[in-house]
Amino acid sequence: MAPAYKLTYFNLTGLGEVIRFLFHYGGIEFEDVRIEEFTEWPAIKSKMPFGQIPILEYNGKTYYQCRAIARYLAKQVKLVGKDDLENLEIDQTADVVSDLFQKTVDYYYEPDEKVKKNKEGPTLDELLPFYIGKLEKQIQDNNGYLVGGHLTWADLHLVGASEYISFMSGKDIVANTTYIKALKQKVHGLPGIREYISKRPNVA
Amino acid sequence: MAPAYKLTYFNLTGLGEVIRFLFHYGGIEFEDVRIEEFTEWPAIKSKMPFGQIPILEYNGKTYYQCRAIARYLAKQVKLVGKDDLENLEIDQTADVVSDLFQKTVDYYYEPDEKVKKNKEGPTLDELLPFYIGKLEKQIQDNNGYLVGGHLTWADLHLVGASEYISFMSGKDIVANTTYIKALKQKVHGLPGIREYISKRPNVA
Repeated sequence: MAPAYKLTYFNLTGLGEVIRFLFHYGGIEFEDVRIEEFTEWPAIKSKMPFGQIPILEYNGKTYYQCRAIARYLAKQVKLVGKDDLENLEIDQTADVVSDLFQKTVDYYYEPDEKVKKNKEGPTLDELLPFYIGKLEKQIQDNNGYLVGGHLTWADLHLVGASEYISFMSGKDIVANTTYIKALKQKVHGLPGIREYISKRPNVA
Repeated sequence: MAPAYKLTYFNLTGLGEVIRFLFHYGGIEFEDVRIEEFTEWPAIKSKMPFGQIPILEYNGKTYYQCRAIARYLAKQVKLVGKDDLENLEIDQTADVVSDLFQKTVDYYYEPDEKVKKNKEGPTLDELLPFYIGKLEKQIQDNNGYLVGGHLTWADLHLVGASEYISFMSGKDIVANTTYIKALKQKVHGLPGIREYISKRPNVA
């Protein structure tokens, strides 16, 4: 029988990786459909709910928006907060990670070369170090995790998204960090995720 | 005694209005601090957690990110879904509303006049009608609400954000709709919100 869940995302880590991490962490079977950005995506884009992926198909319905899907799965695999206020902290941190991702996308995929050149400094030399510095401090202050001193889906989102942010910015954004680097090692070493990492496609 | 909650946002509707709606709907007292965008904001920006507002101060902590705060308050005033999957639908819809808001911001606040002119058609004539059409259909299909046939915080977010999207796009985006317009009337007529609307500052 086919798995109950079907995830469709680009054949890269990006915003889909937190969802894949959650499935593998929880030992939940899913179909991991990977779309090639330049060859397959243009023909599929108009069929997506708001022209975007990831989407998650489950029980006859199509769900969308990376963090909404991740938050749902985090509840199923118990990587959420201990109360409403801790979940607020997890949500705000996940939104910060996605903000950083989106601002790097806005630079990297800028089609006008002159405009892109103008965005380079503000994005790579100002915004990126600002966000990375804040997130470093947050992990330092929270006993090695982003929120509440324990593993949550916000940690999986930062580690998952960091790989494509590194690709887009042309440098490993984790390399010169202490706390984010340690968090990445912890997340990549989790049962389920460790096995996935060892065999996932070698893509950015 | 000062209220337990203190909200800081611009003196406009925008991304803060869903939070104000939730407080007023739930009859929860809060301090509604309103910052003037051009005179007060530049001096305050660097003191905000990630250089952004809204922020919510509560019990000695500062929380941020509009939807994270709204989701927390929606739990307190019971405007959430009946189960995890319905909350996924609410979350994805709230993210769609914020995407539309952000894309309109990207156009309206573009500092380069030539770039702004290039963004005008794709934003106002393509993206905006596409999103509004999708949201109209979603409300039609869900018994007059965005999700689950009943009032949720996603409805408050769409109605709250629509006013500033209208301001930025130079036209009332609700005017030529049937279902969004009816939803707006329902939300504006809710006890607590009705009284707030009647006396709120007259800003975009």
